[in-house]
Parts: sequence; C-alpha cells; structure tokens
Amino acid sequence: MNYKLLDNILEMEGYVPGEQPQGGDYVKLNTNENPYPPSTAVYEAIAEEFRRLRLYPQPMSNPLREAAAEILGFDREWILAGNGSDDLLMMFAQAFLSEERFACAPVPTYTLYRTLAQIQNSKLIEVPFAEGYELPAAELQASGAVLAFLANPNSPTGTMVPPDKIADFARAFPGFVLLDEAYADFADANCLHLVKEYANIGVMRTFSKSYALAGLRVGLLFARPEFIEQLAKVKDSYNLDRLAIVGAAAALRDRDHFNEITSLIKGTRGLLTEELTKRGFDVLPSQSNFVMVKAPEPPGAKAVYLGLKERKVLVRYFEQEMPDHLRITVGTDVEVEALLTQLDEVLKGGK
Amino acid sequence: MNYKLLDNILEMEGYVPGEQPQGGDYVKLNTNENPYPPSTAVYEAIAEEFRRLRLYPQPMSNPLREAAAEILGFDREWILAGNGSDDLLMMFAQAFLSEERFACAPVPTYTLYRTLAQIQNSKLIEVPFAEGYELPAAELQASGAVLAFLANPNSPTGTMVPPDKIADFARAFPGFVLLDEAYADFADANCLHLVKEYANIGVMRTFSKSYALAGLRVGLLFARPEFIEQLAKVKDSYNLDRLAIVGAAAALRDRDHFNEITSLIKGTRGLLTEELTKRGFDVLPSQSNFVMVKAPEPPGAKAVYLGLKERKVLVRYFEQEMPDHLRITVGTDVEVEALLTQLDEVLKGGK
Repeated sequence: MNYKLLDNILEMEGYVPGEQPQGGDYVKLNTNENPYPPSTAVYEAIAEEFRRLRLYPQPMSNPLREAAAEILGFDREWILAGNGSDDLLMMFAQAFLSEERFACAPVPTYTLYRTLAQIQNSKLIEVPFAEGYELPAAELQASGAVLAFLANPNSPTGTMVPPDKIADFARAFPGFVLLDEAYADFADANCLHLVKEYANIGVMRTFSKSYALAGLRVGLLFARPEFIEQLAKVKDSYNLDRLAIVGAAAALRDRDHFNEITSLIKGTRGLLTEELTKRGFDVLPSQSNFVMVKAPEPPGAKAVYLGLKERKVLVRYFEQEMPDHLRITVGTDVEVEALLTQLDEVLKGGK
Repeated sequence: MNYKLLDNILEMEGYVPGEQPQGGDYVKLNTNENPYPPSTAVYEAIAEEFRRLRLYPQPMSNPLREAAAEILGFDREWILAGNGSDDLLMMFAQAFLSEERFACAPVPTYTLYRTLAQIQNSKLIEVPFAEGYELPAAELQASGAVLAFLANPNSPTGTMVPPDKIADFARAFPGFVLLDEAYADFADANCLHLVKEYANIGVMRTFSKSYALAGLRVGLLFARPEFIEQLAKVKDSYNLDRLAIVGAAAALRDRDHFNEITSLIKGTRGLLTEELTKRGFDVLPSQSNFVMVKAPEPPGAKAVYLGLKERKVLVRYFEQEMPDHLRITVGTDVEVEALLTQLDEVLKGGK
C-alpha cells in the first residue's frame, strides 16, 4: 500500500452512535429523541424552500441566526449555526486542540468529546464527577487543559450543575468553557445568560431534543462575536443545507408547540421516575428528557437491557462508563406504559 | 482574555465562498449552480420523509449509498456520503495532514484545499499546471506530499487531465490521490473506474452541480472499503440529515431528468463559448458547467466583472489566482442572453 493515514487516526476507535433501527416496531427509548412530532411550521417552511434547492445556502445560516437572535435575545453576531451540535464540537476541537494542547471534562459524559480530541491527536483529561454529580472544579482547573467540555444537564446522568457553580468555575478556569446545553430546555435553569458575562464561556443548544428535529441536524453556539468569527474559520463553507436553515428557524418561532411538547415530556418524566422507583430502580434526579437509573440486582442492568431489547424496547446501556445503570429516554405516556409492561416481564422471569 | 485558540487558526484566513445574494434579481453565474430545478422526485422523497424528522438519520446514509451503488456500479461499502464534497475533503485533511505531513495540488485550483491544510496546521504544496493545463506530474510526485488533491475537471480552469494520465500519475505517486470530480458529469470522460484498479485513488462526486442540489449539501466518495472504514472514523456521527439522504437518493434514480439537464447545459456551453470568442475573449476548452475566459484588454477582467455586477450579472473573479480571467457559469439560454446583452454594454463604454 503506497499511502498511510495519520497514526492517531489508525489507532483510534470511531465513535459508535446509539442504535438507529431503520425499520421494525421498536419502542425506541435509547437516543433521547423527542417522542412528539416537530411543529407543522417546519414542514411548511421546508416545502416553501424546495424551489431554491439548486442554489447554495447562505453560508452563515443567517435566516436561522436571525430567528435565534430574536427568540433568545442575542444579536446575530453572537450566534454560530452547526450541522448538529456535533459539528460545533468538532470546530472547537479543531480550533483548540493539538498534540500539545488538550481538553478536559467531568465523566461520565458524552463520549464523543474523547473521540474528537483523538481526531486532533490530542487527548481528553477525564475527571470523575464528585459525590452527588457535583463538578470536580479544582481537578479540572488544575488539569492544564485549554478547553473544558461541560454537558449541562449532563448525559448520560441527567444531572445538572447550577449556573452559579458554572460561573465560579469559568472565573478560575484558564481556558475556554464550552457548556453543551443539549438538554437545557428540560431543566429548571440554564447558563445562556453567562455568555454575556464571561468571555470564556460558550453555550451550545440543539434542535435534536426539545424541537424534535434530530433528523434535521441543527445546533447553535452562543458566544462573543470575536470568538464566533475565529471559530467560523474552521466551519465548513455551507455546513447547513437550505432545508435545515429554514426548518430550524420555523421551529424556533413556534413557541406554543415548543412549550407544549417540553411540558408533556417533563410530566411523563415524573411518572416514569415514580414507576421505576417502585420497581426497585435508583433514579438519578433528571433535568433532561431521559432518566439514568441503577438497575436492581438481580437481574442487573445488562440483563434488563438485553431482555428489553428482545422484547422490542430499546434503551441505552453504557457498558464501559456505567455498567450498572441504564439510560431511558422519556417517551410518550403510551411508550412508557409499553416499557413498564415489558420491564415487568423481564424482572419477573430472567431475560 | 483567559483562553487562546491554536496559532495556525488565529493566523489563517477563512475560506471565502462565492457571493450568495439571498434576494435581488441577479443573473447568478458565479458559483456554478445548475440553472434548472432538480428532479421532482426529490421533493416527493423529502415530503415523504417529513414524518421521520424527530428521529436521528441512519449514520452512514445507507439509503443514499444503496442508490449510488445501484446506479454507479459499486458495492455499498465502497461509498461514503458527505455533507457536500467539502465535508469529505475535510475528512481527508483530518485523516492525512499534520504539521509534519502535507498535501499537494496543481494550481490554480479550488482554494479550499489550502484552507483545509491550514486548519490541520499543515500546508498545501502548490505546483503550477504545465503548458496547456497538463498535470505537472513529476513535480507533484517529488513534492513529498502524502495526499494529492486533483480537481478533474479542474476549477476554475474547466480543463481536464485524461484518465490514462491520472492512472500513470497514481502509479508513481507515493501517497493517496483524491480526484475531485465535481464537474465530471459535464465531461467526455471520468476516472470512476480507476477506483477499482488503484488502492490509492479515491473519486469524489457532488450533487451541487449536475443534480441541481447545491442547497441540499451532498457529496459522495468512492474508494476501497478498507479505506472508507478508516475515513469514517473522522466523519461526524450524523453528517447528512434525513432530507438530504432521501433527496439525493431520489435525484440519483431519476436518470431521465439528469440526462436532460446535463445535455441542455452542455449545449448552452457551446453557444456561450462561441459568443464569448466572437467578443474577443479567449475561452479555455471546458469540460464543466462553466467557462474560464481571458478578458480582452481593455477593459480587462476586473472591469468586466465590476461592470457586470453593477448591471446585476454576477460572474466569478479570482483576483489572486487568475487576475486576467473570469469564470462564468453556464446558465439557461435566457440567462446567457442576458449576460451577453449586459456584457456588450460593459465592453462598449462603461467602466
């Protein structure tokens, strides 16, 4: 073979996303998708855009930035759109990380952070959360990292570090603090306002969860304009397609639909928490659209995961990170009912 | 400021895409978009996919790979889908380039190759094309580069290196040869078959030109399965959204529409070449959906570009790379008529 890829690429494992069965009749509670459809305004905006598909999109996704500016109270220049939050995360890795410079994160967390560091021939310093899933601030600050990835609310735990603790952390951290707020719309608080107070804080939001648009791939970053301008240098020229730009903008503007579906999910989360607790699961306090639960032993988390899968209910099992836990997405009440029925079967009789 | 981006990012300039006026009544012949609408099957496939938007896409874009496999005669494992060809190009940069390893390309060519190398803290060795836009093979082979970017047909020149010369080059090049065939559907030949013969050749296609889907962001890479598998490690988990996957698959399957619009464009290219030649422009022989022309002096390329822009006709001017040329996209016959009318005005008198 007369070519060779970079060693760090050859040696690394690729990120493995949650299972996405493209058919079958699964109750799919494994990748934190929204169980409700997106706003119908999304479909209308996309259909209206069909006739422009032959033309390149606006490179900075300005129609979407303008909608976000209006709804979330920022000037357009404070916003960068990504082809999903993952695209924005990659930009951070590219702009900050190298063989000599590394990132840090409290763990367990989104394992893609590690993959992205590896792609840059860098590394992720992983510091375990403190008792009660509090931020291990001192260790992260002392890690020497130039970038901290903080998923808040965190996945897979569903727990949250309060905004005042985040502010304390950012003041003392000698690098940039990226708050991945994919689940913030299901939480009691968020850190978006901190972007205006701290030059080293950026906040990311996604349309995959609260806007029910995982299939459209849209994320947003909020940070200071001078930072956005630098980060945009590593952005793909046309990272969002025309349909994603107008679809996400329409979703943002339909506040009624957004409020309705997020309320429903928060309600069902309470029900699910209660029912799982009754069945002997330890449920971590969730500020997101999923619950992280410690399974009763026996049969243990892995057996429950496999038993449910056999019964066509998919939940997420993180064998490496939290082998005695399961992460269960909050579905509709009907889906939760189906989960509980199958779960009772699994708990009753082996796998 | 308590954070700092990587020096190579701070020092580089971002890539500047061609102007994309989002309104106005421009005759837009500057970014090689297709003047005809895409297949109506695209709209139907996208509308049918609306109801699945709440769910993540298939991570490898399998429905699209399957359509491409069928139409273009490859097994699915030989194909990788990108969020536009640019996304695939970035993957190549990430998998091959570092401070110690660099790329090469004959120039003038697509300037994004240089930007991508800079993002990797690498560089692009730029070797001028030989007389008649022939491949400067010996210099490229001796450059020490691990990756060669060959746009073929090339942009902005529109010229093409024949497949047998490419094969000769790949045999002797001690690295990977990426053939960017964005314009191949407008050419008399292409190199797709070479992928099966040479382990160090990859071929890229885009939906932005011949399929009239620049706004949907889809590109494809053809290469050996073991190579695709490695490259996919640096791919964004869900790089194509659901609508792009099904839309591009539908476009691929509508061969009648594809044949019709590519024929029309090739016809108009002949007309445009003839008319520009009459007006004193030197037209490079084009194998693409644009023509690269040397402007008569006076008034010279820059004055023609500015004069046309003032008259609401956008063409592309590469001040750095080819300051005495203009690149003009082949539009509809009506658009070409409008261009020629305005051009005559510019040539006659104005600035």
